[in-house]
Amino acid sequence: MNHQRYRPYPAVDLPDRTWPSQRIKEAPIWCSVDLRDGNQALETPMDLEQKLDFFQFLVSLGFKQIEIGFPAASETEFAFTRALIEGNLIPDDVIIQVLTQSRPHIITRTFEALEGARKAIVHLYNSTSALQREVVFGKDKGAITALAADGAKLVRELAEKYGEERFIYEYSPESFTGTELDYAVEICNAVMDVYQPTADRKAIINLPSTVEMSTPNIYADQIEYMNRNLSRRDGLIISVHTHNDQGTGVAATELALLAGAERVEGTLFGNGERTGNCDIMNVAMNLFAQGVDPKLDFSRMPDVVNMYERYLGMRVPPRHPYAGKLVFTAFSGSHQDAIRKGMMKVKDKDYWEVPYLPIDPADVGYGYEPIIRINSQSGKGGLAYILEQQFGLHLPKALQQQFSEVVKRVSDRDHHEMQPGELYELFEKEYVDLHVPLRLISYQEASLGTDHAQVMAKMEFHGREVPVTGEGNGLMSAFCNALEGLTGKKVEIKDYQEHALAQGSRSRAITYVELAGSQGEIYFGAGTSSNITKSSIRGVVSAVNKMLEDR
Amino acid sequence: MNHQRYRPYPAVDLPDRTWPSQRIKEAPIWCSVDLRDGNQALETPMDLEQKLDFFQFLVSLGFKQIEIGFPAASETEFAFTRALIEGNLIPDDVIIQVLTQSRPHIITRTFEALEGARKAIVHLYNSTSALQREVVFGKDKGAITALAADGAKLVRELAEKYGEERFIYEYSPESFTGTELDYAVEICNAVMDVYQPTADRKAIINLPSTVEMSTPNIYADQIEYMNRNLSRRDGLIISVHTHNDQGTGVAATELALLAGAERVEGTLFGNGERTGNCDIMNVAMNLFAQGVDPKLDFSRMPDVVNMYERYLGMRVPPRHPYAGKLVFTAFSGSHQDAIRKGMMKVKDKDYWEVPYLPIDPADVGYGYEPIIRINSQSGKGGLAYILEQQFGLHLPKALQQQFSEVVKRVSDRDHHEMQPGELYELFEKEYVDLHVPLRLISYQEASLGTDHAQVMAKMEFHGREVPVTGEGNGLMSAFCNALEGLTGKKVEIKDYQEHALAQGSRSRAITYVELAGSQGEIYFGAGTSSNITKSSIRGVVSAVNKMLEDR
Repeated sequence: MNHQRYRPYPAVDLPDRTWPSQRIKEAPIWCSVDLRDGNQALETPMDLEQKLDFFQFLVSLGFKQIEIGFPAASETEFAFTRALIEGNLIPDDVIIQVLTQSRPHIITRTFEALEGARKAIVHLYNSTSALQREVVFGKDKGAITALAADGAKLVRELAEKYGEERFIYEYSPESFTGTELDYAVEICNAVMDVYQPTADRKAIINLPSTVEMSTPNIYADQIEYMNRNLSRRDGLIISVHTHNDQGTGVAATELALLAGAERVEGTLFGNGERTGNCDIMNVAMNLFAQGVDPKLDFSRMPDVVNMYERYLGMRVPPRHPYAGKLVFTAFSGSHQDAIRKGMMKVKDKDYWEVPYLPIDPADVGYGYEPIIRINSQSGKGGLAYILEQQFGLHLPKALQQQFSEVVKRVSDRDHHEMQPGELYELFEKEYVDLHVPLRLISYQEASLGTDHAQVMAKMEFHGREVPVTGEGNGLMSAFCNALEGLTGKKVEIKDYQEHALAQGSRSRAITYVELAGSQGEIYFGAGTSSNITKSSIRGVVSAVNKMLEDR
Repeated sequence: MNHQRYRPYPAVDLPDRTWPSQRIKEAPIWCSVDLRDGNQALETPMDLEQKLDFFQFLVSLGFKQIEIGFPAASETEFAFTRALIEGNLIPDDVIIQVLTQSRPHIITRTFEALEGARKAIVHLYNSTSALQREVVFGKDKGAITALAADGAKLVRELAEKYGEERFIYEYSPESFTGTELDYAVEICNAVMDVYQPTADRKAIINLPSTVEMSTPNIYADQIEYMNRNLSRRDGLIISVHTHNDQGTGVAATELALLAGAERVEGTLFGNGERTGNCDIMNVAMNLFAQGVDPKLDFSRMPDVVNMYERYLGMRVPPRHPYAGKLVFTAFSGSHQDAIRKGMMKVKDKDYWEVPYLPIDPADVGYGYEPIIRINSQSGKGGLAYILEQQFGLHLPKALQQQFSEVVKRVSDRDHHEMQPGELYELFEKEYVDLHVPLRLISYQEASLGTDHAQVMAKMEFHGREVPVTGEGNGLMSAFCNALEGLTGKKVEIKDYQEHALAQGSRSRAITYVELAGSQGEIYFGAGTSSNITKSSIRGVVSAVNKMLEDR
C-alpha cells in the first residue's frame, strides 16, 4: 500500500478554540434524513407505501424535522411528497424538508411538489469543494458562488410567490470538508445575503462532512471557525451532517455540538451513502446516558431494529451501540461476576450504575436474559446468574465454583456457546436427583425422642434392592449412617442448603448437599421434591452417587 | 425513557490541553487483542487450530505485538500458548502478550504457560474504578493499590526467576474510565515502583476505556492528564485500549494518540466485548488516507474480511469503513457523475483525489466495478460509467440523458437495484439493432461520383418485403432518403458516433445515430456489425423504428 499517494488533511489554525471545554447540555434539533440520504443509498430504495409507513414511524420516535427526499429527482419522490401533503399525513409540529440542487428547473419542480404544504424546509445545495469545482464543474469560486446565489434567488422568489411564511431556508455547501474554510464562509454569506435571515426568522446553514476526511477534532475546529466567522450569526441555525468514512461520524457530530452546532442531520443506525451518516440514535442515546433528555424515544429499541431491518433490508450489527444483540452481553467470567454483583446492588441506588452495562437494558426495551451468556471464557458468576434469574436456582458458592469447572470443560470440548437451557440441563444431569448406582425406593422415619431419630429405607444399589437402617441425632444423620453401612464410604454432610423453587409449582423445594470426602474432597448433590424431607434425602443420595462415581 | 437515572460524566479540568493542536505523524505500536478480548466475546470462541491459523494471519498483516489470551483462565488458552512456544511459531520480531489477573495462583500459572518463550509481555490488570471497588471488591483504594502492587511484585519475582530480559511488563488499571484520575496516577505509580522501568527498559501503562462513558475529547483529556502526571514518564509506553459503547471507540483512540499515547490495543473490525474494541484496521487506514505509513498491510482487504468472517463467525457490515461491500459504492446520480469525472482525471495526478472516494479502492484490493451501482436514484453519469467500464460502450451525452430516464422509469417500477447485466440488456432492448416494424434485409450501394451515392435496399416493413432506393451525397443520406419514401417520415441525421467494441471480437463496431424529429424531438438508435457501413445503416434503421413507435 503506497501511502505516499495521499496527503495529510489541512489543520485549522484555531489555537484559541473553546469547544474542548464545553459540554452538551441539551438535545440539538434533530433532522432525520433516513428517507433521503439513507434511502438513496439502499440497494432497493423504499417504495411509496413503505416510505409512508416509515415517515409515520419517524414521527412516532419524536422527529420534528424530516427530510423526505429530492422530489425533483424522481417520480417516486415527487409522488411521496404529494401523498404526504394531500393525505394530511404531516402532524402540525412536524416540518418536512426537501432537497434541491441549485438549478432552475429543479428548484421550480421542487416548489411544485410542495404545493399546499403547511410548512417546509427548502434545502438548497451545491458542491463547493476545490476538487469538485475543478473536476466536476470546471468553474472558479466566483462562478460557483453565483450558482448558489442565483439558486437562492429563485428559491426566495418562488417562496414569496407561494407564501414565504410557509418556508424555512436551508443551504448546504456540499463537500464542505473539501472546501477552503474562508471560501465556505464566503459562499454561505452570499446565499444568506439573498435570504436575509433574522433572529425571528432563522435560516439553516448545514455544514456536511460529505466525505469524512480527518479526525473529528478538526471537523469541530471547522464548525467553531464557521460559527465565529459567518455573518448574521443570530439569524442562523448551524447544522451538521456527518458521514462516516473514517469511522468517526458520531464523534464528529458530538464534537461539532461542543463547537456550537445546534442541529443534527442523520439517520437511524447511520444508514446512508457509502459508510453511512451519523447515527442519530447513537448520539441521542449518548445524551441519555449522560442524563440529558434526548427528545427522541428509543424505549422500544427492538421495534426500531425490526422496522429498520424490514423496511431498509439492512441489518443492525450485533455490536451496534445500544441496539445490537450482543451489546448488553458479557461472556467473560470476571465481567459476569461484576455485573451480577452490580445488578444486586443497583436496586438500592438512585442512579443506574452496573459494571460493564453503561445503561439499563430495560430503558431501551431489552430484557436481562442476554446480559450474561456462557462460553468457555465464562465463570461461576455468570452461570450462577443465569441459574438464579432464569431457573430460580440459588447455588451455594462452592457448588458454583465446582459447576463452573464442569461448564468450562464441556464448552471447551463442544466448542460452542452454551444456551441457558443447556446449562440447566447440564446442571440437572450432573447434580440433581441422581439415582445410579444408588436409588431411594422408599423410607420410613421413627423418632426415638427429641434428639434421636431412626430411619428405615428401601434402596436400590447396583440394581439390587437392599433394605437399610440407620440412627442419628436427626433424620439426615440417621440416613447418612444407613448409607455408610451400605456403601462402605464415609457419608458426612459438610453443608446443606434448601430453598423453594420459583419455577413451576411453588411448593417444590431443592436441597443442595455437600459431602466431605475422606481426603478433603467435596461432593455435591441436589434433590428436589414437594416434600422437603424427601428433597433432602434425595440430595444426599445424589451426593453419594457423585462420590461413588469418583474413582 | 427516564434520563434522570443517569449522571453526566465528569469533565477533566485541563484548560491548557494541547492535544487538539497536535497531528498524528506516525503509526503507533499496534497490539492486536483479537485472540483475547475479541475471542472471548464470541458466541463460539475459536478452537486451538483456528487460533493458530489466526495468529499466523495477524503476523502476516504486520502485527508485532499480539495478545494471545489469558492462559491461566482456561485450558484452551494455556494449550494455545504452549503450542505457539513449543511449535516455534512466533517470529523473532513478534512479541506475544498474555493477560493475568493480580492473583498469585493465576500469575504463577501464567508464567508456567510462558516457559521457553523468547520474549513476552506480561499484562497484569485489576479493576480500579470507584464502582468496582465498592460493588465487586468491597475494598478501599489502599487495598486495591496493595492488590496491584503485590501482583506486580510476584510478576517481577517470577520474571527474575525465569530471566527478566525475556519479559516486558504491562499494567492496566482496568475500568480506567470509571477511576478517579488522581487515583489512576497513584496506582500506576505504585505498580511502576515495583517494576522500576527506565528509558532502556520500558514498561507499558495501558489505559482502557473498559466502558466508553464520555465523548472522546474527554478521554483525550484523561490521556493527556496521565501523560503529564505519571512518574518515570521516560520509562513508560502509554497504551490505549478503547471500547465502543458510545460508538466513538475509533475517535477516542485517535484523540488519545494526539494526547500522547504511543501504543494502541484493538482488534480487526472492532470485535470485542459488547460493542467491541477500537477497530485497528480503521485507525490504520485513517493514517494511510492521511499519507502516514500505517505499518500494517490491508492491501488484500477481501482476504481479511473473509478470514474474519470464517474464523470468528461475525460479519463485516456493508457500511464498515474501508471494508464493507457498500463503502466504495455510489447510488446517487450526482455522486456518480462526479466520480466518473474524477476517475478520468485522477490518472494524470500525483495524488489520489476522486469525489466521494476517500481512497482508491484498489489500494485495499477492491475493484472498480462496485463503485457505481444503479437504483432509481441514479443518473446518467452512473450508467454511462457502467456501460463504458464493463461493456465498452461510449454513449453520446444526449443518449446518456435519454437512456437515464428509461432506467429511472424501469427501476422505479421494478423497485430493485439494476445489475450491470440488466442495464446492458435494457440498453440493447431499447436501442440496438431494432427491427420492428422496419428491418433491413439487404442493400447495395452505387457510387455516382465522388459526392453522390445511390442505395438500393430490400426492407421488411410491417411484415411485408419492400424494395427501396434513394440518392444522396453519401450512403447514409441516400439511405435516409430511401426510408423517407417508405415511411412517409422525415429521416434527418442530427448526430452520429461510431466506435469499435472492445468486448468480444475487436473488429465489431457500434454506431449511435441521432435523428431529428419534425417537432424538435430526438430519436436514438444504434447498430452493430463487423462492417462499419452496415452498423451505420442498422443504426439508422433502429432510430427510425424508435421514431415509428413514438405516436
